Amino acid sequence: MIVACLDLEGVLIPEVWVALAKRSGIAELRRTTRDEPDYDRLMRGRLEILQKHGLGIGDIERSIEEMAPLDGARAFLDELRQRFQVILLSDTFYPFARSFMAQLGWPTLFCHDLELESDGRIVGYRLRQPDPKRKAVQALRALNFRTIASGDSYNDMSMIAEADAGILFRPPQKVRDEFPSYPVAQTFAELRAAFEHAAEKIESAGSGA
Amino acid sequence: MIVACLDLEGVLIPEVWVALAKRSGIAELRRTTRDEPDYDRLMRGRLEILQKHGLGIGDIERSIEEMAPLDGARAFLDELRQRFQVILLSDTFYPFARSFMAQLGWPTLFCHDLELESDGRIVGYRLRQPDPKRKAVQALRALNFRTIASGDSYNDMSMIAEADAGILFRPPQKVRDEFPSYPVAQTFAELRAAFEHAAEKIESAGSGA
Repeated sequence: MIVACLDLEGVLIPEVWVALAKRSGIAELRRTTRDEPDYDRLMRGRLEILQKHGLGIGDIERSIEEMAPLDGARAFLDELRQRFQVILLSDTFYPFARSFMAQLGWPTLFCHDLELESDGRIVGYRLRQPDPKRKAVQALRALNFRTIASGDSYNDMSMIAEADAGILFRPPQKVRDEFPSYPVAQTFAELRAAFEHAAEKIESAGSGA
Repeated sequence: MIVACLDLEGVLIPEVWVALAKRSGIAELRRTTRDEPDYDRLMRGRLEILQKHGLGIGDIERSIEEMAPLDGARAFLDELRQRFQVILLSDTFYPFARSFMAQLGWPTLFCHDLELESDGRIVGYRLRQPDPKRKAVQALRALNFRTIASGDSYNDMSMIAEADAGILFRPPQKVRDEFPSYPVAQTFAELRAAFEHAAEKIESAGSGA
């Protein structure tokens, strides 16, 4: 059996911080891992901005509940789950993902926790571990699963490198240029086909389907 | 975040081999891990019986497609998935589980592969690894998840021992007697409550929710 490891933001749902920046009118929230590969630096900045503007978890959850997964994401994921075991590997936080997970049929998600005060202030965050996407793929391989990973951004590259096969989905040009060896999919139909192509290669190589 | 590790047969779906024994009238297929803790010995015997009676994967899949999850299993699982990340850990085989997974909303399942000939004969099976349920819990812990495990049988005890908390669900009396330290749930309402109780203990101990 193959486990499909899928990035979340930019693949199945919009970039949450970008969407929050739009809704809140706070332009500084627009930066993502596409702009700042150091995730910790990025996050500390974001939390400072929220605090400065007096935004707590309740405000953010209310904004997120009005958002929807990307067009076609649910159908793509439903089909993928019939062919593979699917685990979403994301650098988002569980409270931010919750309403999207409900809309996507509660797929398994590995991401991070937020530290909240009882009044709803976000006082910190707890990354589950360093390089979590790569570690998840390593763990799955140690369980003798084969793996196919797909994502769009810098923070996906170590999981893609670690997997039996990797696919870039709608990558920005600079990611595409830096990692030219991976196939690129621009639509869900192309991504589904790329997963199938990778799976057939893995299965015909024979060491476990 | 806590990952709920849940056994499949006897918890969410019927014991597939017992159900197959009933439908086929082949009484020898009735033995389960409750009777024979050595899973490899059990499986080799089962495959011999199938071969003797000329039953291939198609016959078995047709039987299984007429089966349903246990009463209340889907509702229980849906609720559990809203509270925890859920991974089903089973010693069944993917082709046997498929129709149940469709009925349960495609939860993530870690189990084993069958070796099939093109004519549908089941010529062997491939256990993913020895002691797979324990190894899965270990892998999740290495990813810094907390874990709560529940199952009904001998092959669940190593995962239950490895997890942060364990719950027996409808165990046979001899399992209950051998492992008296674990809480026992007899209904899905009790199981849901036992998960919540265990989660609150883990979360109040503080090292990660």
